[in-house]
Amino acid sequence: MKTLLKNGTVVNVFTDELEKVNVLIEDDKIIGVGDYTDSEADMVEDVSGKYICPGFIDGHIHIESTMLTPSELARLCVANGTTTIIADPHEIANVCGTDGIKYMLEASCGLPMDIRLVIPSCVPASGFDESGAILGAKEIKELYDEKRIAGLGEMMNYPGVVCGDKEVLAKISDSIAAGKIVNGHAPLLSGKALDKYISKGIGDDHECSLEEEAKERIRKGQCVMIRRGSAARNLAGLVALFAEPWNRRCMLVTDDCHPDDLIKKGHINSIIREAVSYGKSAIVGIRMATIQAAKHFKLDFVGAIAPGYKADVVVFDDLCNLGVTSVYKNGERVVENGKCKSFAEPCISPELVNKVKGSFNMKTLSESDFTITPEDKKCRVIKVIPRTLITDEMITEIDFTKNNGIDIERDILKIAVIERHKNTGHIGLGFINGLGLKKGAIASSVSHDSHNLIVVGASASDMTAAANRVKELGGGYVLAVDGKIVSELPLPIGGIMTDASAEDAAKRNKELREIVCELGVNPELNPFMNMAFVALSVIPHLKMTTFGLVDVDKQKLVSTFLED
Amino acid sequence: MKTLLKNGTVVNVFTDELEKVNVLIEDDKIIGVGDYTDSEADMVEDVSGKYICPGFIDGHIHIESTMLTPSELARLCVANGTTTIIADPHEIANVCGTDGIKYMLEASCGLPMDIRLVIPSCVPASGFDESGAILGAKEIKELYDEKRIAGLGEMMNYPGVVCGDKEVLAKISDSIAAGKIVNGHAPLLSGKALDKYISKGIGDDHECSLEEEAKERIRKGQCVMIRRGSAARNLAGLVALFAEPWNRRCMLVTDDCHPDDLIKKGHINSIIREAVSYGKSAIVGIRMATIQAAKHFKLDFVGAIAPGYKADVVVFDDLCNLGVTSVYKNGERVVENGKCKSFAEPCISPELVNKVKGSFNMKTLSESDFTITPEDKKCRVIKVIPRTLITDEMITEIDFTKNNGIDIERDILKIAVIERHKNTGHIGLGFINGLGLKKGAIASSVSHDSHNLIVVGASASDMTAAANRVKELGGGYVLAVDGKIVSELPLPIGGIMTDASAEDAAKRNKELREIVCELGVNPELNPFMNMAFVALSVIPHLKMTTFGLVDVDKQKLVSTFLED
Repeated sequence: MKTLLKNGTVVNVFTDELEKVNVLIEDDKIIGVGDYTDSEADMVEDVSGKYICPGFIDGHIHIESTMLTPSELARLCVANGTTTIIADPHEIANVCGTDGIKYMLEASCGLPMDIRLVIPSCVPASGFDESGAILGAKEIKELYDEKRIAGLGEMMNYPGVVCGDKEVLAKISDSIAAGKIVNGHAPLLSGKALDKYISKGIGDDHECSLEEEAKERIRKGQCVMIRRGSAARNLAGLVALFAEPWNRRCMLVTDDCHPDDLIKKGHINSIIREAVSYGKSAIVGIRMATIQAAKHFKLDFVGAIAPGYKADVVVFDDLCNLGVTSVYKNGERVVENGKCKSFAEPCISPELVNKVKGSFNMKTLSESDFTITPEDKKCRVIKVIPRTLITDEMITEIDFTKNNGIDIERDILKIAVIERHKNTGHIGLGFINGLGLKKGAIASSVSHDSHNLIVVGASASDMTAAANRVKELGGGYVLAVDGKIVSELPLPIGGIMTDASAEDAAKRNKELREIVCELGVNPELNPFMNMAFVALSVIPHLKMTTFGLVDVDKQKLVSTFLED
Repeated sequence: MKTLLKNGTVVNVFTDELEKVNVLIEDDKIIGVGDYTDSEADMVEDVSGKYICPGFIDGHIHIESTMLTPSELARLCVANGTTTIIADPHEIANVCGTDGIKYMLEASCGLPMDIRLVIPSCVPASGFDESGAILGAKEIKELYDEKRIAGLGEMMNYPGVVCGDKEVLAKISDSIAAGKIVNGHAPLLSGKALDKYISKGIGDDHECSLEEEAKERIRKGQCVMIRRGSAARNLAGLVALFAEPWNRRCMLVTDDCHPDDLIKKGHINSIIREAVSYGKSAIVGIRMATIQAAKHFKLDFVGAIAPGYKADVVVFDDLCNLGVTSVYKNGERVVENGKCKSFAEPCISPELVNKVKGSFNMKTLSESDFTITPEDKKCRVIKVIPRTLITDEMITEIDFTKNNGIDIERDILKIAVIERHKNTGHIGLGFINGLGLKKGAIASSVSHDSHNLIVVGASASDMTAAANRVKELGGGYVLAVDGKIVSELPLPIGGIMTDASAEDAAKRNKELREIVCELGVNPELNPFMNMAFVALSVIPHLKMTTFGLVDVDKQKLVSTFLED
């Protein structure tokens, strides 16, 4: 089967040229770029006035952060021209271990988007994390035989690398020995410590926010992933990297993407669009997001419109908006008029489905589980700040005589993190300020990185109701008010992903957010997201885990009650 | 063991910057680039005023064309800063098949230069070639398990590729399936035929002589190897490729190197020096010859001065002459003050040594073997032309009554190509014009690509003496005059390589050339080299094989005697 794309303008990622040439595809491969004619093809698409470029590659994304299944994500991404993603299943691995990774492999097989995985390197993320699984070097090594495994995921444990922790170094060297790559994650690390980190073979970083930080990494041989996701938006700060020679060592990635952003803005094409709005060349952005990402991840014959290359081809309107009209994946037209055609869902082993859908293992909670026994008046309270994942420590006096310390006037709510993988009964309890919720409770099974059950509320009874509903759903976002479930988004896959459509998930998410705002939550906050990071004990300063409060700076557990 | 190179200027191949930074090496790896001090190292080399760059990579060379053993070649190359070569053992494979390749692997193991091999794709090179071995897809595939095999060597059979010859395509797809690369060789192929050729997965070409020819290949996704060897000198014609964006897809290679050029001019450093003399940037040349070649050949962590990279490091005087002073290979100083330190010779299996040193299998010749039975007066004569490998067909009348047709006045000598691998007794006999030899005979076991025994002479008795001496030596260049051996260069390894030093080989070669010039040979010719290509039936127009004359344009055997 031969397809001809005629009368278009090809973006040549080898030369940065725009070429008025026809493209001939045979089966899954591009076989010619030149003056080919209708008679040489079985099917012809006239793309007059349009541009043709290779399918985009997202070099670093967590599928779980989209809350969508790989299949649903593929539907959205491919409609925006993305034909390959390198996904780090860090979240599902924290919940279900290697079964979670195997689920992701099977759930991403045969889709109209090529999904490669890197194996999460840091499960659990911290010693304070009660995750559902632990991934040691041994478990990781066994996964490298699979062709779709691209390497080792973001190595967040940079102290472990720099200090030469043997298990950490084994994870890295095993990936390299398998001929695969190692993703970095070392924000602001520099100088000799960075040398030590990079010298172990860590090939890239997606955490750069500063131009000089990125340039140091490029000078030292790393590739820089310019990140512009729903949460972290580093493109504006790194736009200088679009110049030569820096652009030669960059890729474009999203890291975390929310479904509403994917629907409204797009995917990698929206990053290029933003770069264009800063006066940068779309061609350079396309090059970064195609051949350069492919080379970095050792995807041979991917990422260019050239003979012998995989026929992952995007047809789009112009070099400003990058509005995608057609997409060919492995030579098959999977997007027409900007819409993804229907495709067969992947076939997933029932035992893996059962594993990820049965990830809750905890007792049903009762109000008394949320009672704090007062020891002192002076307490540590977590203070949430809009637009950052960093939290502050607030020291204040709590009056335990009323409502077991909850004080709506002063915006002091109760927070609990409940272990939900192994039924240990561990519950971390404390107070939180800054959310603004006046009544009810919100609960969620999305709490980084272990995804235990987190609940914040203005009343213990609503906290109980919300938390138990999340358990009942096998995961989700839940809002309970006056003992009733007011709104919810079920996330039954590992407690972190929905099997609903992106549109449905976005709608329910929006509804939840609107109602909690009506209930007093600061509209500058994304309460479920902020809450998800309150459990992550690697971001400063005060966080809540299943073991209780963690002083992140000191890396130790602390009591809610101030020691003298 | 830690070594510090201090006070030098580092050529950063990621950014094209010159950086005043110290380089810290631990064991075989660079571990830091920055303000490291003496106290952090066990050994310090002060390289004040000098430059530091990664070791050079020659992406395409035939070791046999240097006539040197891998070990002797390594000694010369590393002193010029080359720490890696990708060698195509096409010549030895034509003589000894897979045993020849295995010999090259063992003979190149553990040297102060990393030698990778590509498997010759076209053995024999043509249907008229009586080679010592045939390499089919099956034999080639079995070699891919070896880590030092980088892929499939230059695919000269472009008609086979374009027409879809199954055996040819299997050779290519097997290399790609093994994750390795495929070298191209398709001079002047363009347009749709080039698309077909490239679309099979052929990744590079070293045969470009024209700027537009090279640019078409780059646009179509190939890497271009800019060649400047002893024979083919394409740098001047391709110097425009030093500009962006073309330079990003180029490497520097030698292809064929004669020992005297290596001694007098250098290796890859001399190509960069020539580029600088054309006003081009040495930094771009260094980048082409290091990180870009390494990436092309999938040599991870090779080709840069950066943390985690292999400590293949060159210290050189300046960016004009690139005079090398020190070289570190795998972190060990192997060149000091421009001289290569002595190193252990590789240990080669005796059976492989016996194979390559016992490559002659033919009877001893007698004068009568060189007698041509006249059938007609009008004859086809091969006409040698200075400075090209192309030969012409000369039609002339031969007087067989004197000296069996040899006519020194008219410079008509006798030529014979004698099968010497399988004792078939095949001898191609005919006449040659243009050499100018007035007496004696020259014989050589270097004759492309099968390396049968070729002899040209002014007398049948000298031809017999010279040819038998070559057989006796197990290979070599020999000059016989009046029945005596006047000068010789033994080439006992496969009949194509010497176990003498480069200096000795160059000296004997020079002596031979001087004497043959005294005997009347046109000084514009390199008689042994011209003779070597008279047997290559893929270069126009009239050639001599063991089966007799070949009309290359018609690709058929023809008689010395003109048919009417």
